[in-house]
Amino acid sequence: MATAAGFYRRGWVLGTSGNLSAVVERDPLRLAMTPSGVDKGALPAGHILMIDEEARVVSKHDARPSDESPLHIRVVRERGAGAVLHTHSIWSTLLSDLHADRGGLAIEGYEMLKGLAGVKTHEHREWLPILENSQDMPALAESMAEMLRQHQDAHGFLLRRHGLYTWGSDLAQAKRHVEILEFLLEAVGRSGSIAGKPNL
Amino acid sequence: MATAAGFYRRGWVLGTSGNLSAVVERDPLRLAMTPSGVDKGALPAGHILMIDEEARVVSKHDARPSDESPLHIRVVRERGAGAVLHTHSIWSTLLSDLHADRGGLAIEGYEMLKGLAGVKTHEHREWLPILENSQDMPALAESMAEMLRQHQDAHGFLLRRHGLYTWGSDLAQAKRHVEILEFLLEAVGRSGSIAGKPNL
Amino acid sequence: MATAAGFYRRGWVLGTSGNLSAVVERDPLRLAMTPSGVDKGALPAGHILMIDEEARVVSKHDARPSDESPLHIRVVRERGAGAVLHTHSIWSTLLSDLHADRGGLAIEGYEMLKGLAGVKTHEHREWLPILENSQDMPALAESMAEMLRQHQDAHGFLLRRHGLYTWGSDLAQAKRHVEILEFLLEAVGRSGSIAGKPNL
Amino acid sequence: MATAAGFYRRGWVLGTSGNLSAVVERDPLRLAMTPSGVDKGALPAGHILMIDEEARVVSKHDARPSDESPLHIRVVRERGAGAVLHTHSIWSTLLSDLHADRGGLAIEGYEMLKGLAGVKTHEHREWLPILENSQDMPALAESMAEMLRQHQDAHGFLLRRHGLYTWGSDLAQAKRHVEILEFLLEAVGRSGSIAGKPNL
Repeated sequence: MATAAGFYRRGWVLGTSGNLSAVVERDPLRLAMTPSGVDKGALPAGHILMIDEEARVVSKHDARPSDESPLHIRVVRERGAGAVLHTHSIWSTLLSDLHADRGGLAIEGYEMLKGLAGVKTHEHREWLPILENSQDMPALAESMAEMLRQHQDAHGFLLRRHGLYTWGSDLAQAKRHVEILEFLLEAVGRSGSIAGKPNL
Repeated sequence: MATAAGFYRRGWVLGTSGNLSAVVERDPLRLAMTPSGVDKGALPAGHILMIDEEARVVSKHDARPSDESPLHIRVVRERGAGAVLHTHSIWSTLLSDLHADRGGLAIEGYEMLKGLAGVKTHEHREWLPILENSQDMPALAESMAEMLRQHQDAHGFLLRRHGLYTWGSDLAQAKRHVEILEFLLEAVGRSGSIAGKPNL
Repeated sequence: MATAAGFYRRGWVLGTSGNLSAVVERDPLRLAMTPSGVDKGALPAGHILMIDEEARVVSKHDARPSDESPLHIRVVRERGAGAVLHTHSIWSTLLSDLHADRGGLAIEGYEMLKGLAGVKTHEHREWLPILENSQDMPALAESMAEMLRQHQDAHGFLLRRHGLYTWGSDLAQAKRHVEILEFLLEAVGRSGSIAGKPNL
Repeated sequence: MATAAGFYRRGWVLGTSGNLSAVVERDPLRLAMTPSGVDKGALPAGHILMIDEEARVVSKHDARPSDESPLHIRVVRERGAGAVLHTHSIWSTLLSDLHADRGGLAIEGYEMLKGLAGVKTHEHREWLPILENSQDMPALAESMAEMLRQHQDAHGFLLRRHGLYTWGSDLAQAKRHVEILEFLLEAVGRSGSIAGKPNL
């Protein structure tokens, strides 16, 4: 997948981190999904799994879907998303920790915000909620769904010391949201060191 | 366009940000221009629009020209430029905010300045004016034109929390100006954190 | 080797720094190893040496194995590793110095840690031991072996102002460990400047 | 030239900055040299000039040699170098300014130093002299030659707010010296911000 390889080149899905999914069919739900534990820099298209709404593999693969598949499925349901992307960048990792106590991070006043779906002006305040990280996926999926309902306008969220989730109506829009949010997280993160103090 | 793809690789036109234009004919004005809302990392040459002096599309495309086309057209008129390039880098975004209260940013004493058209020595002081960002394009084009007349020697300017505009007699010179100004903005930005305080 | 070229592109094996080895046979030990003093950005596959357990070249090459071959051989023996990778990145260089007085560096709480072999949760504390650098290879190999026995759970270690060593059951796992540890070192390093103080 | 394109990708010769030369013949001196004012990211091999010991073009080109050709010629004479490389990176630009008052910059204790010709241990202290920048090339060439005689062991030097010069017995060694010195300059530069104060 060109998207995965591009994120790998930027250092957003190093190791076997990150995962990508795209809706192929809605009823019944069929999600094309990156398998667990693979190197996104060398991912042949044939390795993409097809999973159902319970995160069971329905294609002929013996690979396992990512542990985080339930999060992708819930984002698809809650937001009607056509694609869900998850990256582990340096800046999302750092800012998700620095701002965790406030429960989220506000990004406002940047022209780049206009690239988020439905945003028409830089005079926009994007609230990026931050969830505590957890290995209990059913519980995490529940608290994530609750958070998405509370923050209907959010275009993404952070898992603490873990990374960014964002989505879009299709893969192209989701990829655009990754690039925009990663850019803004880097800008916010560096603006702290440029001004000699963290940007809180 | 190789120029757009190169800027994308450097992270200067992520998402759908940034736009590029080049004069094809001067009378009547015909400007080749990147369309609105496209990914500059994957822009086929056939998607470049042709617009006139009122920013109307005159080629057979159903795409929309960038909202910022009026700025490109005014730069062409005010400066006689052959190409206008606009990037959204991290450093132009951060410095345009940090220096906004002073109305601009002075860059001086760097050898790299010699790459700007007409500059013969590093003992040059480049004043990069900063304009408040706005979504009111006719008003912004007016204040930009006024600013260009006041700063006849400027090789570019910044829009606050938005990015860099620069231009050149042709696309090659404009691309050189982007690389030089982006380099200098990064140098100025990092010189603040290297010295433990912002470089104001 | 694609792995070497990839590390070169990320700036982890610039100059002639860094070296890579992979076990070809265990009994007697045969290790495929990068030669001394070569540019990893332009390393033809045919230049890889085969060495034995005494670091003698057993393939038909007149190149010399890396001076650090004894370290690779000892890691293979102590850990049963199938591949050993050594990088000289900016962040491993800086943090190996900053944390040298404490004898190591703790990295904990990051989701990325789950990419290390056997780690199942982000609630893991990875202790990355730091050894003083030395040109006396037999002595360094001894102190390294002693350190590996004391820190049975370590997935890698740092040489002070020198770089990172890590390994894996095969080359793919070792490469994954490099990417994960380099990511985490960069995160730890930048978290100091983002918070306005070193992260000690 | 692959070397120029590689430096361009790393951002060390942006705009039209930087230049490269290699000795083709010693008596009479014939130096292959990048022309003035070209984009190193798109430099066809056929554009390389041949110049003599007075920096006159002796090949059939109407391009001009770089203004800094006299510096290259003097380095070749003073050091017996086979290739001379000059880059304008962010870190060489910043450190050449920060350390200018001391007349140079000491780099010591890094394993990476071993990649410099003749250096056998990390317990080496490399003194990188810094010269004031000037557009008076004959005068600059004289003060540079004087400096090279005073610092017989130096593998390179900095021009203030301008960049790095280094050389080698051939192009491969000179390229290695660029990568090593650029790495070390970045390490020294970042070690200041990581420790919360400039590294003076």
